[in-house]
Amino acid sequence: MSDPTLSIVCFSGTDDRLQAVAVLTAGAAALGRPVHLFLQYWALDAFRKDRIDADHGLAPEAGAAGREAVDALRAAGQASWAETLRQAKELGGVEIQACSLSMDLLRITEAELDPLVDGVEGVTSFYLAAGEGQILFI
Amino acid sequence: MSDPTLSIVCFSGTDDRLQAVAVLTAGAAALGRPVHLFLQYWALDAFRKDRIDADHGLAPEAGAAGREAVDALRAAGQASWAETLRQAKELGGVEIQACSLSMDLLRITEAELDPLVDGVEGVTSFYLAAGEGQILFI
Amino acid sequence: MSDPTLSIVCFSGTDDRLQAVAVLTAGAAALGRPVHLFLQYWALDAFRKDRIDADHGLAPEAGAAGREAVDALRAAGQASWAETLRQAKELGGVEIQACSLSMDLLRITEAELDPLVDGVEGVTSFYLAAGEGQILFI
Repeated sequence: MSDPTLSIVCFSGTDDRLQAVAVLTAGAAALGRPVHLFLQYWALDAFRKDRIDADHGLAPEAGAAGREAVDALRAAGQASWAETLRQAKELGGVEIQACSLSMDLLRITEAELDPLVDGVEGVTSFYLAAGEGQILFI
Repeated sequence: MSDPTLSIVCFSGTDDRLQAVAVLTAGAAALGRPVHLFLQYWALDAFRKDRIDADHGLAPEAGAAGREAVDALRAAGQASWAETLRQAKELGGVEIQACSLSMDLLRITEAELDPLVDGVEGVTSFYLAAGEGQILFI
Repeated sequence: MSDPTLSIVCFSGTDDRLQAVAVLTAGAAALGRPVHLFLQYWALDAFRKDRIDADHGLAPEAGAAGREAVDALRAAGQASWAETLRQAKELGGVEIQACSLSMDLLRITEAELDPLVDGVEGVTSFYLAAGEGQILFI
């Protein structure tokens, strides 16, 4: 088969779900597949350059044990989701676009976004780039 | 390419995720694609006709700043997710079905659902309608 | 059409989302489709054999009414998500794999997992098994 694009609508801005985004992105990129991330809502908010390396919390279900597990791995040197995405982008084929509607909602300007973000696009552009490939919503 | 159906399993009933459903539905419909929504659990509950226009809250991660952003946009006249879905249905090609198992779980009768909902179906009917097209879980 | 594999990345470990996983798995299996579950994070935690039958809570949005509805159905004899998955596996074609990175994160050993789990794999193996078939993230 060719290398079909994997598209991910990133909605959630908690560190656990963004880590899932990063792992799934890095894995697909390692297989040579193009990956297209579309940042909406709280995920977009997490990509502001003044807070991308901040603590974005975990899903409520993580609980104290989950919090402790994540902290222990980070203390042991595990890359953050932002670092993992930077590494995946260096492999090539990873594109990260902000959703224009969510930019309006959160009153974010492109200058406020981390350089990981390649640009801003609307939902129809997102669909056209995704084609008939797989789309995840995270 | 033809216009492949986009299917969305709608699970979450918070206004932010339902707004994401509405935006992704409207965008696909604007491209001429058929869209098939399958309402489960808390999303189904949000489509009761006596509460579809109520406040359904946001994901916990939204926080106070997220709440404020959503309220400001609504005050500025942004359409609610239900209004966006109504408009998308007028374009044609958008079908909204309630999951029969979730109807039983929540003891909802078809008469209690908003007219946006076209009917009730089981999960196998959902898969048959989705074919090999894209499926999102929101 | 042939019977394309349905792949589900299971991230959330609450009983309502795991029930959605079980229903979507059982429905696909009933149609003769292979189903491949990939357990990450809190979903993986829920498959520990010493707690798979415990109460894993619901999404916060469920509220008191949601809690009551789920409890009523369980009291009426509805199968738990774990039971539904066991039944689906007996039909054949359902494979459940733990994500190796999440095993490390949560310091879980394979011996601690419920026998429902068939093994441990990395994300690239997951993608290769999924091929170009549908992938859901729950």
